[in-house]
Amino acid sequence: MATITVPQVVPSPVEDAEALMKAFQGWGTDEQAVIYILAHRDAAQRKLIRLAYEEKYNESLTQRLQSELSGDFQTAMSYWILDPVERQAVIANSATKCIDEEYPVIVEIAYANSPAELLKVKQAYHALYKRSLEEDVAANATGNLRDLLLALVSTYRYDGDEVNSGLAKSEAKIIHKAVGNGSITDHGELTRILGTRSKAQLVATFNYFSDEHSTTVTKALLHGEDPTGYTRALRIAARCIADTNKYLVKVLRSAMRSSGTDEESLSRVVVMHAEKDLRDIKEEFHKRASVALEQAVAKETSGDYKTFIMALVGSH
Amino acid sequence: MATITVPQVVPSPVEDAEALMKAFQGWGTDEQAVIYILAHRDAAQRKLIRLAYEEKYNESLTQRLQSELSGDFQTAMSYWILDPVERQAVIANSATKCIDEEYPVIVEIAYANSPAELLKVKQAYHALYKRSLEEDVAANATGNLRDLLLALVSTYRYDGDEVNSGLAKSEAKIIHKAVGNGSITDHGELTRILGTRSKAQLVATFNYFSDEHSTTVTKALLHGEDPTGYTRALRIAARCIADTNKYLVKVLRSAMRSSGTDEESLSRVVVMHAEKDLRDIKEEFHKRASVALEQAVAKETSGDYKTFIMALVGSH
Repeated sequence: MATITVPQVVPSPVEDAEALMKAFQGWGTDEQAVIYILAHRDAAQRKLIRLAYEEKYNESLTQRLQSELSGDFQTAMSYWILDPVERQAVIANSATKCIDEEYPVIVEIAYANSPAELLKVKQAYHALYKRSLEEDVAANATGNLRDLLLALVSTYRYDGDEVNSGLAKSEAKIIHKAVGNGSITDHGELTRILGTRSKAQLVATFNYFSDEHSTTVTKALLHGEDPTGYTRALRIAARCIADTNKYLVKVLRSAMRSSGTDEESLSRVVVMHAEKDLRDIKEEFHKRASVALEQAVAKETSGDYKTFIMALVGSH
Repeated sequence: MATITVPQVVPSPVEDAEALMKAFQGWGTDEQAVIYILAHRDAAQRKLIRLAYEEKYNESLTQRLQSELSGDFQTAMSYWILDPVERQAVIANSATKCIDEEYPVIVEIAYANSPAELLKVKQAYHALYKRSLEEDVAANATGNLRDLLLALVSTYRYDGDEVNSGLAKSEAKIIHKAVGNGSITDHGELTRILGTRSKAQLVATFNYFSDEHSTTVTKALLHGEDPTGYTRALRIAARCIADTNKYLVKVLRSAMRSSGTDEESLSRVVVMHAEKDLRDIKEEFHKRASVALEQAVAKETSGDYKTFIMALVGSH
């Protein structure tokens, strides 16, 4: 479930556009007013506001926000203002540009979406960039990591619940053999299985693996770290298959380590899930971190950025 | 353009269903009547006949045809009676089962369809087999051939005309280096480029290649034969990118060699294109083979199979 709150009586898109223009004018931007409006409108409403604003003032609201705001607040708002599918295409594109660091974002997008949703993201990518997500991933990554990421973003996975138990058993064995004792011995088979099998099938395979070897696939992969990122990408994939929300909680917790906040990751998860399933992720966060997500965010952020993210996570 | 002919006044689906039942009854099947009806109905009409037949006689027309007909005629009709998208899913599935020989069919399906059409084939595959085409291809092929086929069927290619000339130039160089002098030195890069770039981009890249090296990519690949089929699959991909119809003419000509007819390939190309673009393929065939497709088919086939294929290629 979503965490954002929308007022019971919402102003018309034109009224919202006018209020935004008012917030932009004069000495300095009235960031509180911007947040008060945009953090409390859903995607359909924000789209109508964008259209009303552009029709009335003959300029792009997205661009105006970029010039009015700054820092982490500006980045988070630039994601928030976009259509949810387009937003994921933009985030994926940005990740392909420094893929050696940002490949976890690609894995996350490949798995946090259903196959039908991922297809829509890829269609938005075509429309925005006149290229495919696949070619950008393939052109920027290298080696085994490239093969894995390409399989993850390109395969149109089967989305049904049917599971082939015999196959799950035999592929659990293949995974065990390929993961080896500390270093991966068969990248091709691991990429094939995690890159093409349906989520339901992979869950069954991972369950057989746990039953047989008294450890999870994720933990087995912990021993095989390699500098290319392949093993880490595989581990993220395995985590997302087992429980995507639990993985996102891990991302949020890492983003708010006391050693320094990773605003990029915090914004990404909050913005991408605030209208979708952030309430479930919040519950999981509370269980894991023994502190509410709101409290963690309040402690690790400040200023307009804090106000904005707090509004998106549903804090009053 | 299509080659099949549909009568100006078409009987109702129920009348056609009744005529088919009449053809099935009595001593032996009246194959001529079956051909007279089904070879002269388009996909939408055949679908209505299937529905009318199943409602009236409480049995599947597809299954009844399989038991009434035999040999190459039965195989060709079993493809023809299917919905065009479903038919490609069935043909692709059958190719995955003996992929070491049948991989050219997978390449053909990946390239003879637009990205949107290929997506529909993959959706039909999900519905029919409760699995993805990708996982079946990946599970049955091995090595470099697997990587190439997986990229071909899984990538949702960009379908626009935009071309990046700088990229075309640099990737033409990469291809030249990777193809080497007789044996391929970089499978990964060749798979990446042919597996993920848009058709328009690849055409531009191939043109730079020809300009620079006074030979085509297809010809350059002729020197690098390997036992795994990778080079041949790559060459088929390159041919399809350059000119899919020309490649299909080559398939038809090989299928009708004097050393023996390959009815499977002949049926596949004729059935898959009779309602779509077989007229263009016929023209190209005539130019290349200096004989009309009808004449070649008449010479190399016989019996009911001959009558059926001749009707599909538009011979009167």
